[in-house]
Amino acid sequence: MLNDEQEISKLVANWMAATKSGDTETVLGLMTDDVIFLIAGRPPMIGKSAFAEAANAQANHGPVQFEGTSEIEEIKVFGEWAFMRTRLSVTITSAGGAEPMIHAGQTLSILKKENGRWLLARDANLLAPVTKSGK
Amino acid sequence: MLNDEQEISKLVANWMAATKSGDTETVLGLMTDDVIFLIAGRPPMIGKSAFAEAANAQANHGPVQFEGTSEIEEIKVFGEWAFMRTRLSVTITSAGGAEPMIHAGQTLSILKKENGRWLLARDANLLAPVTKSGK
Repeated sequence: MLNDEQEISKLVANWMAATKSGDTETVLGLMTDDVIFLIAGRPPMIGKSAFAEAANAQANHGPVQFEGTSEIEEIKVFGEWAFMRTRLSVTITSAGGAEPMIHAGQTLSILKKENGRWLLARDANLLAPVTKSGK
Repeated sequence: MLNDEQEISKLVANWMAATKSGDTETVLGLMTDDVIFLIAGRPPMIGKSAFAEAANAQANHGPVQFEGTSEIEEIKVFGEWAFMRTRLSVTITSAGGAEPMIHAGQTLSILKKENGRWLLARDANLLAPVTKSGK
């Protein structure tokens, strides 16, 4: 039996693994229906259906591989809700042979326990492109 | 007697007013000692003392006026903790007569009630520069 912090860590690991393998259905199962994604310089993405649409639109632009590492810096649980900070690094590789892009930075997320399962409910993504030295 | 949501709204209004008038002491009184500010593309700013240092460093670069409008989009309270989403727009005017800069976007914040007062504890700032059309 895992405690809440361990369940939330597992959610993050499952999210990263499903994203890497392009398994959008599994990723959609890890968020609340009313999830809100906040990204700097873009309008908020509101709702699971908006995430699904964006994932499909991306897939139609050709295969893209996401590979990331995530380090949880803080989890705080309040009953059925929690917040979490992570340090995330994502390498995005397109099929065309272009140089992979690396984005890294912090996230601040709100999680909600629904029917005994922790899900992502709000997510602030503060990642920025990493500039490679010498390029 | 204000309820928690009203107290948190008042915290935001006080923060904006004190920032506008350059009253760093008041702003510092509205955050927890262990506050963490997350901004895209920058390392996290950890602790009230780091905020104070940054405010002083900025003051030494000459007078800068911050004027902002903030719209609270969501507040959710869990006992002594809460989260909040806002839509924020900030106009930054330097003394030198340069064109004011406008930054706008979303925030996701964690608030904590200490000794009966709501304080900012974690803040993800997703604001981005607003490009003026025709410039």
